[in-house]
Amino acid sequence: MTTPTGQSAALTVGVVQHECDPDRERNLAQALAGIEDAAQRGAELVLLQELHNHRYFCSIEDPGNFDLAEPVPGPTTRALADTARRTGACVVGSVFERRAAGIYHNTAVVLERDGSLAGAYRKMHIPDDPGYQEKFYFTPGDQGFRPIDTSVARLGVLVCWDQWYPEAARLMALAGAEILLFPSAIGWDSADDAAERRRQMDSWITIQRAHAIANGLPLACCNRIGSETSSDRGPVIDFWGSSFVCGPQGELLWRAATDQPQVGVVTIDRRRTEQVRRVWPFLRDRRIDSYGDIGRRFAD
Amino acid sequence: MTTPTGQSAALTVGVVQHECDPDRERNLAQALAGIEDAAQRGAELVLLQELHNHRYFCSIEDPGNFDLAEPVPGPTTRALADTARRTGACVVGSVFERRAAGIYHNTAVVLERDGSLAGAYRKMHIPDDPGYQEKFYFTPGDQGFRPIDTSVARLGVLVCWDQWYPEAARLMALAGAEILLFPSAIGWDSADDAAERRRQMDSWITIQRAHAIANGLPLACCNRIGSETSSDRGPVIDFWGSSFVCGPQGELLWRAATDQPQVGVVTIDRRRTEQVRRVWPFLRDRRIDSYGDIGRRFAD
Repeated sequence: MTTPTGQSAALTVGVVQHECDPDRERNLAQALAGIEDAAQRGAELVLLQELHNHRYFCSIEDPGNFDLAEPVPGPTTRALADTARRTGACVVGSVFERRAAGIYHNTAVVLERDGSLAGAYRKMHIPDDPGYQEKFYFTPGDQGFRPIDTSVARLGVLVCWDQWYPEAARLMALAGAEILLFPSAIGWDSADDAAERRRQMDSWITIQRAHAIANGLPLACCNRIGSETSSDRGPVIDFWGSSFVCGPQGELLWRAATDQPQVGVVTIDRRRTEQVRRVWPFLRDRRIDSYGDIGRRFAD
Repeated sequence: MTTPTGQSAALTVGVVQHECDPDRERNLAQALAGIEDAAQRGAELVLLQELHNHRYFCSIEDPGNFDLAEPVPGPTTRALADTARRTGACVVGSVFERRAAGIYHNTAVVLERDGSLAGAYRKMHIPDDPGYQEKFYFTPGDQGFRPIDTSVARLGVLVCWDQWYPEAARLMALAGAEILLFPSAIGWDSADDAAERRRQMDSWITIQRAHAIANGLPLACCNRIGSETSSDRGPVIDFWGSSFVCGPQGELLWRAATDQPQVGVVTIDRRRTEQVRRVWPFLRDRRIDSYGDIGRRFAD
């Protein structure tokens, strides 16, 4: 069974959700073990969570945290490459990248099944709000929204805050991405009540499912679990897990718990992108003559 | 209680979901009765469904159906204006508009509380798929995505197929819309199985909730109910109702049944747009320097 372009119809995706503690090596070992587990269960493509080597250090602004950064390629891509080669799975990881003195990025990296570096995506939309002070750490990506070609698929890799922007998903789809992938690190403020927590997590899942729907693409998202605080000065964030995979109508195929480490393995039927785009041909009817103001900040 | 711009914080919205039969006068009378009902229960703004005067004639291509069209302003806007003035509610209706010989539009009309015509929006994205042959009937709108100013709010009025396009909602938000409004006519193909029906309806609600989330705006959608067929040549469509109102985190505030006429009256707290956009300031971080390819059909 193949797609109209001759690919295998089945694409088996793994998603590795775990907790992070202050020990980098232990965190990375968890991620690598998750890749092994997923690959043994058939995953050809494995998605890790955002900044999986570290506790989420961005909850406070501390210049000392730049010591956590590393080059790409570097130690983390080498470790991921070894595991990709050994398992035969394509791996999407996440690195706090040092590009030059004073230029750091939040970078998703893609390792081919043979261990080569297929490409990287530098997070374009950078958040900054209480508990997520990323504008201090990360220079916004300057390479746009370019999918990364691999032997398993053309990957539309985006990172966390990008997930709130329909433009990002659309641009990846228009550039031929066959699946959208979101390494994430998002959680609740411990001061928020239960109703606000529900609304926030539900918003987060809903808008990503909507990117799948708008573009007729499957989507996978990987988020961490656990309560973290960077220091006694920082807030406590309860990361909400809930990593998930959905199909091109936004239909949930798998969803993890909010508080348990889990390795999900989900087989996606890629033929559904063709089928869904035939029935609901949204890309056909886009009014590209009338979208110019998308490039404006506000029309005042 | 007011918003930062001095508006009343509470905005009470009515949504009139009903069945249509072949009798135009009866359909319009139902819509007008729904406005009266909603206004008596406090609605300041009432949303009707798409093409509420008629059965959904677009399920087949029949040149005779152009006889159903009328000018704007015309008989329907006059009837809506009378009801708007009498009830003191601002009304969003829907007209099969004859603009000139050979130029017809699917047009949403907005009547002020004093009965004046506040503005109109001509559907920009026109579908064409089995059962929804709208490209035969409707010239695509040529006036872009411009909100309509009224005494109750700046309204981001869009129509049905527009609801699948994040660009449409975004452009309305960037132009200062304070609420998104979608008159709709969508249903199931009687040949679809239960799982496909669930996926389709869920997609439709999900993507609209996502427009609310992406833009931090409340949203109301009004869809018809009932099984219709235009003729013995046409397909049977089971319109799925499920009109709804959600807040700026996509949280559902009200949702109608799939098969019952209903008039919903929902009070929205407009202060939440300010609050939500402070916590999740998505508009701040848009990468307007990198969205140029949104204006391309496909990047091949």
